[in-house]
Amino acid sequence: MSAPTPLSVEEDELALLTDLYQLTMTQAYWKEAMDGVATFSLFFRRLPPERRFMLACGQQHAAARLSRLRFGDSALSRLAGTGLFEAGFLDWLANWRFEGDIWTLPEGTPVFANEPLMEVEAPIAQAQLLESLAMNLVQLETVLASKAVRIVMAARGRPVVDFGMRRMHGIDAAVRGVRAYRTAGLAGTSNVLGGLRHNLALNGTMAHSYVLAHDSEREAFRAFARHYPHTTLLVDTHDTLEGVRQVIELMQEEPELTVKAIRLDSGDLGELARGARRLLDDAGHDEVQIVASSGLDEAQIAVLLEEGAPIDAFGVGTQMGVSADAPVIDLSYKLVAYAGEPRVKHSPGKINLPCPKQVYRRRDDQGRYLGDVIALRDERVAAGEPLLRPLVKAGRLVEAEMARADDAPERVADALPRFPADVRRLEAGASDYPVTLSPGLERLQSRA
Amino acid sequence: MSAPTPLSVEEDELALLTDLYQLTMTQAYWKEAMDGVATFSLFFRRLPPERRFMLACGQQHAAARLSRLRFGDSALSRLAGTGLFEAGFLDWLANWRFEGDIWTLPEGTPVFANEPLMEVEAPIAQAQLLESLAMNLVQLETVLASKAVRIVMAARGRPVVDFGMRRMHGIDAAVRGVRAYRTAGLAGTSNVLGGLRHNLALNGTMAHSYVLAHDSEREAFRAFARHYPHTTLLVDTHDTLEGVRQVIELMQEEPELTVKAIRLDSGDLGELARGARRLLDDAGHDEVQIVASSGLDEAQIAVLLEEGAPIDAFGVGTQMGVSADAPVIDLSYKLVAYAGEPRVKHSPGKINLPCPKQVYRRRDDQGRYLGDVIALRDERVAAGEPLLRPLVKAGRLVEAEMARADDAPERVADALPRFPADVRRLEAGASDYPVTLSPGLERLQSRA
Repeated sequence: MSAPTPLSVEEDELALLTDLYQLTMTQAYWKEAMDGVATFSLFFRRLPPERRFMLACGQQHAAARLSRLRFGDSALSRLAGTGLFEAGFLDWLANWRFEGDIWTLPEGTPVFANEPLMEVEAPIAQAQLLESLAMNLVQLETVLASKAVRIVMAARGRPVVDFGMRRMHGIDAAVRGVRAYRTAGLAGTSNVLGGLRHNLALNGTMAHSYVLAHDSEREAFRAFARHYPHTTLLVDTHDTLEGVRQVIELMQEEPELTVKAIRLDSGDLGELARGARRLLDDAGHDEVQIVASSGLDEAQIAVLLEEGAPIDAFGVGTQMGVSADAPVIDLSYKLVAYAGEPRVKHSPGKINLPCPKQVYRRRDDQGRYLGDVIALRDERVAAGEPLLRPLVKAGRLVEAEMARADDAPERVADALPRFPADVRRLEAGASDYPVTLSPGLERLQSRA
Repeated sequence: MSAPTPLSVEEDELALLTDLYQLTMTQAYWKEAMDGVATFSLFFRRLPPERRFMLACGQQHAAARLSRLRFGDSALSRLAGTGLFEAGFLDWLANWRFEGDIWTLPEGTPVFANEPLMEVEAPIAQAQLLESLAMNLVQLETVLASKAVRIVMAARGRPVVDFGMRRMHGIDAAVRGVRAYRTAGLAGTSNVLGGLRHNLALNGTMAHSYVLAHDSEREAFRAFARHYPHTTLLVDTHDTLEGVRQVIELMQEEPELTVKAIRLDSGDLGELARGARRLLDDAGHDEVQIVASSGLDEAQIAVLLEEGAPIDAFGVGTQMGVSADAPVIDLSYKLVAYAGEPRVKHSPGKINLPCPKQVYRRRDDQGRYLGDVIALRDERVAAGEPLLRPLVKAGRLVEAEMARADDAPERVADALPRFPADVRRLEAGASDYPVTLSPGLERLQSRA
């Protein structure tokens, strides 16, 4: 393996990033000439116990990708090499195109159990082949955005910066994760490529190695602050409060140097922040801000702020980078209709909602959300904003809808305060936000 | 965003997948003309509480990638656009090459706290720039392999197949994860691209949607078994044991159809496996195997087998796909020497091991592992196999070492039984496998 295998997946091999059974089932449909229109719903049955809502993210990105899926020559020859597929089927795959419809919730929509994030409607051999990749693409951004929005809520308006690139699960997660973080309302990222690609401000300070490579902390601070006016200096390499004193003395020695902030990265952050704030204020440097990092999550941030820690901004990496307390959602992509008939798996104790659907989010006259109604797509429901929109029609992207993905951070910031406080609590536990079924869906569901 | 942003990272942009401070620190080193040789150690201070060892994985792959890192034109122009970098530095980056050494543990080495997985030695502006990407690359495969090997141990020789692609964190994780699973000893994967790229057998059965799209379970089984002799039929769409009866009747109706296995994907797997086994055996079909999936992890697999569930193979997805109980390791990439001097951060209560190091794994005369000694690289230690090997020398891959990565599954299978049983236990909790410091390192460490 002296030539390392590629880290990337080329456009013409992306269609192979699927579970084998999608391809064997599709070959079976092809042999059986089964081409009825199928509707698949992408949803989760239960919130992770650590979450009161999920922030649906990545569906528009995924829909764009899925609608362009092709089996290129390289993909076809690799499939031929498995010996599992007939020549006629491979020829058919060469011309395979997604020509159906994809409905999605807008990026950044808070979403609850059983509400479709996406519905795909197409001849079954088209809709089936999207399953595995759709789930992978939507899950990543939804899991990361759902964690990040909790960190943002915990920070109560203070900027939060992503430091997680090194902890995330590989390259795609590290890059696309920044998109999810931007949606959730983060203020910046240390991740250069992710930030440049997904339009989030770049942030950076210094590492302990920079201090250690110099003969003294003071020399390291001096050199860095000369190179980078308004920089942030990392003060905890040896002794944190002594580090703060070094910064203060440096500013006294060279008044033309401006230091924007100090960063605390270990120890008792609340106590050290109070001590550092006192030292800085006593020296007349109340303009120097305090940034805290150090394996933080939303619970620790909430405690720090409740205890009045004078921290101005947070850097969060490890826990947010993989959504460590809830790294996965049990997304399902279920057949709900085939050839005009409702189809669902009959599982004891599980709700399985048949047919194409719509979700209505009801508001009161102050704009506060009262609850959601999951309905049949064509059913008339008295009130509420329909959340699912057609993003792909007959295989083509609806450009006006795609453009809306960029507004996701604003929509998240607008939507969150409209929910009952209970939904926004950080503690684990189900919220009582009502999600009900429409009369039409209730009737079909009880019959199933 | 009608043209979706690329899912992949091209070779010439990979150098931008880093934390901003790596680049600003490097610019500072360049301005300060600091070019002393630095040694950085990649290690973790503590095992995750859920792990008794980690299976080091991905380091050789990472070293190959890191040794080729370049700042291409596109990367340089993106950096110029940030306004943070001087033209002279960008010119210097254009010619930046890694010309140092990288030592790594072989892929698939069980590893413990404080043992370096990788050591990088180069002028500081070269070694520093590898940090973020090195950590991201090594963490992914190490986290996934370390979870997967526990599943393999729990299955006690029964084949385990990866069903996790849809749950993994994005595309790179889904593809490279298969490499980690292969190293850990999985028998196959449902993931077509991952399996083809990383040489792991492809496996697939059928989904509930296939059954639901047909008019009856029997018709679905008949069609699929006719298309795919020796296939696996999913029997739990409606009622599991009734599904097994449908399979048996089908085999009686069409004796030329061969069914290799049935798959159980919900309910009480132990009870259903016993019921299914009885039905199959009573019908004279003891050749039909039973495959179980359904949110399994190593604990559930262990319980099923302890209770004697007649399950022949396991499909594992969700929990393994993200290493849900330990999705992250707190890897550090620490400066341990600069310009010939030991350098470490002095943190109260933390061990920080200075200088280039070696790890010796000691065996008794039956080949059983007795414990590890972490030593200075040039120190003579009485006994034990040195684990770290130079994989990159003066910027170039050592081809003979790279070839060894492919043997990782065999080395894992050989090494695991040599550890004390305590290391291989699945329960959470520290093992008492001894990892000690050499006299030379102990002396330096106590002085620091």
